[in-house]
Amino acid sequence: MSIKVSIINIGNELLLGRTVNTNLSWLACHLTDMGMLVHRSVTVRDKAIEIKKAIRQEWNNSDVVFITGGLGPTKDDITKRVLCDVFDTELIFNDTVWGEVQNRFLSRNLVVPEINRSQAMVPSGFIALKNQWGTAPGLYLQQNGKSLFALPGVPLELQVIFQNNIEGIIRKQYALSSLYIHNIHTWKISESALAEKLSELKVPKSVQLAWLPQTGRVDLRIYGNDSDRINITKVKLTELIADYIWGENQDTPQSVLHKILSDKNLTIAIAESCTGGLVQQIITSEPGASRIFLGGIVAYSNNTKKNILKVKTETLNKFGAVSEETAQEMAIGIQHIMGSDIGMSITGIAGPEGSSAVKPLGTVYLGIVIGNEFFTTKQIFSGNRETIRIKASEYLILSLIELLRS
Amino acid sequence: MSIKVSIINIGNELLLGRTVNTNLSWLACHLTDMGMLVHRSVTVRDKAIEIKKAIRQEWNNSDVVFITGGLGPTKDDITKRVLCDVFDTELIFNDTVWGEVQNRFLSRNLVVPEINRSQAMVPSGFIALKNQWGTAPGLYLQQNGKSLFALPGVPLELQVIFQNNIEGIIRKQYALSSLYIHNIHTWKISESALAEKLSELKVPKSVQLAWLPQTGRVDLRIYGNDSDRINITKVKLTELIADYIWGENQDTPQSVLHKILSDKNLTIAIAESCTGGLVQQIITSEPGASRIFLGGIVAYSNNTKKNILKVKTETLNKFGAVSEETAQEMAIGIQHIMGSDIGMSITGIAGPEGSSAVKPLGTVYLGIVIGNEFFTTKQIFSGNRETIRIKASEYLILSLIELLRS
Repeated sequence: MSIKVSIINIGNELLLGRTVNTNLSWLACHLTDMGMLVHRSVTVRDKAIEIKKAIRQEWNNSDVVFITGGLGPTKDDITKRVLCDVFDTELIFNDTVWGEVQNRFLSRNLVVPEINRSQAMVPSGFIALKNQWGTAPGLYLQQNGKSLFALPGVPLELQVIFQNNIEGIIRKQYALSSLYIHNIHTWKISESALAEKLSELKVPKSVQLAWLPQTGRVDLRIYGNDSDRINITKVKLTELIADYIWGENQDTPQSVLHKILSDKNLTIAIAESCTGGLVQQIITSEPGASRIFLGGIVAYSNNTKKNILKVKTETLNKFGAVSEETAQEMAIGIQHIMGSDIGMSITGIAGPEGSSAVKPLGTVYLGIVIGNEFFTTKQIFSGNRETIRIKASEYLILSLIELLRS
Repeated sequence: MSIKVSIINIGNELLLGRTVNTNLSWLACHLTDMGMLVHRSVTVRDKAIEIKKAIRQEWNNSDVVFITGGLGPTKDDITKRVLCDVFDTELIFNDTVWGEVQNRFLSRNLVVPEINRSQAMVPSGFIALKNQWGTAPGLYLQQNGKSLFALPGVPLELQVIFQNNIEGIIRKQYALSSLYIHNIHTWKISESALAEKLSELKVPKSVQLAWLPQTGRVDLRIYGNDSDRINITKVKLTELIADYIWGENQDTPQSVLHKILSDKNLTIAIAESCTGGLVQQIITSEPGASRIFLGGIVAYSNNTKKNILKVKTETLNKFGAVSEETAQEMAIGIQHIMGSDIGMSITGIAGPEGSSAVKPLGTVYLGIVIGNEFFTTKQIFSGNRETIRIKASEYLILSLIELLRS
């Protein structure tokens, strides 16, 4: 693990807090998969002096430096000028890049805005990397065995330049020792309770164990170069917490559910209240969802629950919309309407309104019907409206997975 | 703007790419609103030497330093030891903190895991800040007019400590000059086309203009201490791009839609295909959505479109599921079923499967019916499955806003 990788993200928007830095996580994820660990990342404002300081610092201390942002045509995009300053070079008009920029507009029958001419200026000594999704090319410098890559801040553009150009350059340039990674996904247990259960686990020095807290659940990652020791650690760890593991590696709740339903040739339908469509959105975020998911209903009002899902008026009056009985009738209702093998339902209080002493904020009833068998569970999730909705949706999906496996 | 704020995020998970750094954006957003600009942020691994280097660097160059992460009870949480090292102090057992940790568990009838004793160790000279959502307290050091705050990495815990403790400390400690911020939200125009339209705009030196690209649309932010000049800039800018503005400041598509529908006393219902519930999830992410949103259907299969939404078999056969005609019948269908004033629909190809030469990836038909009036539009969105779904959902919501305003 001798290659030091550093990432510099440029952009006022990242430090104003309105934009979440997904470029860092995307790059880090792909570099890690290639066997390169990012050791540090710096985010700076669109200010020449700050960018310069960051590039100098990271270039001195790292082998590979990625820079994102500040390559667009708007006035605050100054990365190229700073690069010229730091590496004592100058911008040169690049005909190939200009041709590509023009083609992007012409192919859509658009006039090329004059402001885009600046996109064709490339610092001398740098190689321009083609951007298939936008006008700003990536930039690549190789110097004294070190590499610097500058990428536009628009996520899709950054990604296509990385995949089409940079991956190949890095693999050619560096002899990467394989990094072995094993992810373990848990639920129904807190980070500290998990730590307690794993306190007796001896992790060898050559193996890294990372805690990756998700919303309402915890992922564990075991990684390093020593595949044998990683496997031994994995087996021991899995034994200690077997009851809480629902998946591994790239598994998501939705991908695991898809696989099980496809294997068993089963279809589902979903009726949601407080989660307002989130369960369906998560399940359909997986490509090919139409093979297992027939459809669903967001029943936000009692009238919808009654008229469409056929929840009994009596049930709503006696037990309330947020109750085990309503959850069960919603699951059966959607199963019948859609003609699916399985019906799922959620009804609860995501807040901020609607809670009471008996049904506090976060109270959620989950219903599942498989054929003629009913399962319901009550959970109280902590957090705000957004996190309660996420936790409840994933809990329902993971509950169904558990039922189908048992 | 003389106070320099720096944020250090600690955690292997942030540099492994599996966890997006939402703590940075949350803190930056709240500090900016208080009139404090974050000038730099550094992310480092759970490695004492890297954390130490980062704290030293940022503490030397900034007035206020925030540290997030590395305060939990698991073994990789080493922030406190490093703080002792950097500030030449030692950990002392704090009875008050230990009492609070014990109360958290006892109030839920749980035994306190022994591992949590470490949570009560506080570096001497630091003040412990109460954490109402978890066991790790925040830490606060004041030295030579500078402030350092260390916060747990769990977002909700970080947020509650900031709001209940740190906001007050900062306001007492620093005379913050008010920062005036005005956000302008645009759609239907690209960043470079927007830049071209604004090329004649003269922005005074005392006013900052930031570009905040969102998925499929661009936000602009005008900010600084000079409220008069900001207002003048805002008026001029608004004139130049009036056709593309849909909202301002904290507006979201869903919050603007809620307001208009509430004001006009109208209700909506939604039928979705390719977006799989995302439109409904966005609309119900707003508290109190039940007042304007009656419910909806995710009609993923043709059978659901026919049997429940009453889309004609003839329409599906002749024009296909992804067509203007189907979109229109879906919107009318859901309006009738739910008894709402307005029906909305989306049908399209989010990929990766299902595209053709005639209907390429990203082809989406949006339908709206208000009373007896129909509106449909066809859009082709670029991107992957996730971004196409987001763009289509927001476009539908913004289209309805435009119609209701006209």
